Amino acid sequence: MTGKVGVIGLGNMGFHMACNLLKKGSGGVVGFDVAQQALERLRAEGGTTASSPAELAEQCDTVLTMLPNNDHVRTAYLGDEGVLKTLAKGSLCIDSSTIDPIVARALADEVVSKGSTFMDAPVSGGVGGAELGTLTFMVGAKPEEFSRCEPILSLMGKSTVHCGDIGTGQVAKLCNNLVLGISMLGVSEAMNLGSRLGIDRKVLAGIMNTSTARCWSSDTYNPAPGVMEGVPSARDYENGFGSALMLKDLGLVADAAKKIGAPIPMGENAHALYQIMVAQGYGSKDFGIAFKFLGGTDSDEETRGPL
Amino acid sequence: MTGKVGVIGLGNMGFHMACNLLKKGSGGVVGFDVAQQALERLRAEGGTTASSPAELAEQCDTVLTMLPNNDHVRTAYLGDEGVLKTLAKGSLCIDSSTIDPIVARALADEVVSKGSTFMDAPVSGGVGGAELGTLTFMVGAKPEEFSRCEPILSLMGKSTVHCGDIGTGQVAKLCNNLVLGISMLGVSEAMNLGSRLGIDRKVLAGIMNTSTARCWSSDTYNPAPGVMEGVPSARDYENGFGSALMLKDLGLVADAAKKIGAPIPMGENAHALYQIMVAQGYGSKDFGIAFKFLGGTDSDEETRGPL
Amino acid sequence: MTGKVGVIGLGNMGFHMACNLLKKGSGGVVGFDVAQQALERLRAEGGTTASSPAELAEQCDTVLTMLPNNDHVRTAYLGDEGVLKTLAKGSLCIDSSTIDPIVARALADEVVSKGSTFMDAPVSGGVGGAELGTLTFMVGAKPEEFSRCEPILSLMGKSTVHCGDIGTGQVAKLCNNLVLGISMLGVSEAMNLGSRLGIDRKVLAGIMNTSTARCWSSDTYNPAPGVMEGVPSARDYENGFGSALMLKDLGLVADAAKKIGAPIPMGENAHALYQIMVAQGYGSKDFGIAFKFLGGTDSDEETRGPL
Amino acid sequence: MTGKVGVIGLGNMGFHMACNLLKKGSGGVVGFDVAQQALERLRAEGGTTASSPAELAEQCDTVLTMLPNNDHVRTAYLGDEGVLKTLAKGSLCIDSSTIDPIVARALADEVVSKGSTFMDAPVSGGVGGAELGTLTFMVGAKPEEFSRCEPILSLMGKSTVHCGDIGTGQVAKLCNNLVLGISMLGVSEAMNLGSRLGIDRKVLAGIMNTSTARCWSSDTYNPAPGVMEGVPSARDYENGFGSALMLKDLGLVADAAKKIGAPIPMGENAHALYQIMVAQGYGSKDFGIAFKFLGGTDSDEETRGPL
Repeated sequence: MTGKVGVIGLGNMGFHMACNLLKKGSGGVVGFDVAQQALERLRAEGGTTASSPAELAEQCDTVLTMLPNNDHVRTAYLGDEGVLKTLAKGSLCIDSSTIDPIVARALADEVVSKGSTFMDAPVSGGVGGAELGTLTFMVGAKPEEFSRCEPILSLMGKSTVHCGDIGTGQVAKLCNNLVLGISMLGVSEAMNLGSRLGIDRKVLAGIMNTSTARCWSSDTYNPAPGVMEGVPSARDYENGFGSALMLKDLGLVADAAKKIGAPIPMGENAHALYQIMVAQGYGSKDFGIAFKFLGGTDSDEETRGPL
Repeated sequence: MTGKVGVIGLGNMGFHMACNLLKKGSGGVVGFDVAQQALERLRAEGGTTASSPAELAEQCDTVLTMLPNNDHVRTAYLGDEGVLKTLAKGSLCIDSSTIDPIVARALADEVVSKGSTFMDAPVSGGVGGAELGTLTFMVGAKPEEFSRCEPILSLMGKSTVHCGDIGTGQVAKLCNNLVLGISMLGVSEAMNLGSRLGIDRKVLAGIMNTSTARCWSSDTYNPAPGVMEGVPSARDYENGFGSALMLKDLGLVADAAKKIGAPIPMGENAHALYQIMVAQGYGSKDFGIAFKFLGGTDSDEETRGPL
Repeated sequence: MTGKVGVIGLGNMGFHMACNLLKKGSGGVVGFDVAQQALERLRAEGGTTASSPAELAEQCDTVLTMLPNNDHVRTAYLGDEGVLKTLAKGSLCIDSSTIDPIVARALADEVVSKGSTFMDAPVSGGVGGAELGTLTFMVGAKPEEFSRCEPILSLMGKSTVHCGDIGTGQVAKLCNNLVLGISMLGVSEAMNLGSRLGIDRKVLAGIMNTSTARCWSSDTYNPAPGVMEGVPSARDYENGFGSALMLKDLGLVADAAKKIGAPIPMGENAHALYQIMVAQGYGSKDFGIAFKFLGGTDSDEETRGPL
Repeated sequence: MTGKVGVIGLGNMGFHMACNLLKKGSGGVVGFDVAQQALERLRAEGGTTASSPAELAEQCDTVLTMLPNNDHVRTAYLGDEGVLKTLAKGSLCIDSSTIDPIVARALADEVVSKGSTFMDAPVSGGVGGAELGTLTFMVGAKPEEFSRCEPILSLMGKSTVHCGDIGTGQVAKLCNNLVLGISMLGVSEAMNLGSRLGIDRKVLAGIMNTSTARCWSSDTYNPAPGVMEGVPSARDYENGFGSALMLKDLGLVADAAKKIGAPIPMGENAHALYQIMVAQGYGSKDFGIAFKFLGGTDSDEETRGPL
């Protein structure tokens, strides 16, 4: 059993993570969020709440942050009422937000200078994984400290991967999503092209999935309607990983790549395309909406022409 | 046992395919190539040769073409000394070249108008697969005719997939390679970025391969040196699938997409990047050379900086 | 005064060019088009018509073609009823279509082998210029033959530029439109970005037009509504140079670049973006519609936010 | 005559600007830079120096900053020893650095809250213009305050343009350079393509410069060797506007575009291409080096092939 855990950021992800901590045996949860409603929701589940990150940190030896962006995370730790104002030496800070790895490292330096431990632990698995407690955590932590996160993270996820030193959790998350955004666009282009050239889209997906085009975007999450059941493309791209979220992650990738001078031509092109999709109003649709954006139709019948 | 098979195009691929036909029980092979040396090489293996496609077609009821591009294939069938000058009614023509599916269909119309059968059957598996007889054939054929190709193709490959009507074999091949070229570039960008941001490249590949970035370019053919053994990136990108060949396939994809008005923004970007690589002299290197082109190094040690 | 001129292709451009030949002193015009209506329209203006390119060529010592694409031009000259079936030795063939320069050269070889002269002479100036007789002709011709085109072209245009040997007229046209498509997209991005960041779009255009961003797309044909009068962006992008035509030209550029291995990364990106615009239904709108496609608004007032 | 002017940032640009202030009649210059050498150089020209921005601001009623990036500017004003620690009410702060307009506005708010005036005034004209005092200043300033900058800026430049409210100077600079980077790449692609297709590059440039491809990158700064004298392409791309600087500006554009959600697909592609060029070692070469990067040669003779 862990001690009391402070959870900062009680949105779609953080609320479910806090609930799992409450249900599965942590020593209690103290929550903080800027939205009053979020605090009430946590209290209804048996948690307590604090009026600031600083007040929260006074009561906990572990702090978990799950926030939308760099600035929110920095403010939560370093702000006038931030965690570092009150955090006891020897505490453990875990940031599960997806942020810039370079920002994560700078933040880690501040936490370490106060005598505590920092780990970045962004997640995959989405809101569904947060609710079911089946998230995967990609953890950047000093080798000798890594084991400290497992008792807590195991209450919220099914898998905890040590990626390397501080910051590498974010690096792994961003690199993964860079490939994901690019391959989703590639599969969308191929499925639309193939369908219009007259191949049955299920047959095409079947061939690609057993050949060198094989990838998660094709075999597990195919963006062309009619290929798979139970995926966003089968429900008008609702309840998936929103294009606006993919855009945000590709933006973080671009920021990090720019800082170290790594060229990502396909990544920048993917970012630009998702930016156009969001500007055209597709932000809340699953990122497989790229198939529709490129002119893809609901079925082969609609596209088969004279060819 | 099949009848005599005419093989037009005795290059790296066609020669080995003809040898397998000879060894594994076809009723003999008649070869044609514009290079005299290629004809001699076939005769040394026990085949006979003809002085033109027309002369070849007179002797065979099955014709197999394995040629570099649209124009070669068109000339082989429709030229002044082409197959159609002499082909007997009821013959079977199989084109295993990788060409434009729209060109393949137009060619099929000509063959059909002479009372014979045409199938497009491009391959995957490369020169190695051609030699070992383990190619995969992606076949576009009329449903009622498909079974005719199997006795012959099974002598040269391990798998024959019916993709749909005539032309869809080429469609499947091109769509597959479109995704392949895009995902290889995506994986190259991510591996270089991650390595420079300080994550161990083996660890990064391991995470991507069990997450949503999973793809053949990452888990089977990773382009970053130090991740896998026995792949081109482990031997300075030698003896792989050349960048110039990937460029050619992406060019065919672009042609087909243009003809039907299907947007392929990532595909065009991939084509442009491989064109730059070829212009810079990387044409004969495996297409994973993209990793080096983007600044990737031979090992993590060389890239790890202060970050 | 010239002899009789045959005009093949009596569409929006060719019809007006034929009329100017009739009005301004050629020795008569014989027209051909696959559309009967087009033939009647020419007869109403005083021209005569032929039932095939071959019949037309019998009556004329100069043949002018103004057709939509490579295949139309090839058929007009080389088809079963093509110009070369009847063309008298010593005749002059001028192709004002915009086609692949490599196709133009191959065609020239055929014409020359019949003892006649070929020149490529694509135009700029659009339908308006064709009607007013103010076109610019970019002419590829042998130096010793160039002067032969001037008496005829001067009846239809205000300027005739000798670009070099056969084919270079097409090269000049394509290179010009490559830069044009790219700079229009660049100006569209900048005008939208600037407007959203709070600068008055007229002020922004004024600064760019006197600085290093200066270009025709900005100072003569600005795509942002509210900057200029009398341009397509001031009339909802009607009556301009259609996106579908820009797409066609960028496609020809891509074909030519591919054949000689010249990388055009920005050109391919421009092609992909115009392909998406056309797929989304903007094909007949002026190519400045890129501004709207990228989220541009009708006026600064609509975009100015808190920034 | 102005009062004493403090100049923070005495690099290639700032030093020359300070010298012009000294020579042309300001009431003296106090300089600050982190490099001691830079301070000595200014003292040799008759200026005085301070040991921190705060110490500098105590002595001046006008402060001019000319620094490499967002962080340097923020630190100069807001740091522990920053300008705002000592700045007298009613002072004038002019930032001539090229930075993110959103950062500029946030900084302006801080300066205004101390009772002083802030203007952003990035420049065009380069080191040469700084030395000769012929810079153009693009100024973002409140309308009622704009006139205050003119007496000072006129000592260093030939033109001062009021772009609108605070931040719009940066907006104008970034939008201009966005178009510039894109059009330079477009011209580079066209010049290389045309040269390889057999048109004389001087003839091609001449045609483009009188047609719709006309732009500064073509008619004033053509990147193909052999077209113009006295430009970087005529001296192996030395002493021009470095690719690394263009990359930096395109990076700022991308940041600003991302913050407000404006798609810049061509801009991101340009950024990616310049990032590759810099990674390949071309950072200090003029940004016209794109022509060489794409395979361009020193003269038409080297590229003219069989076409």
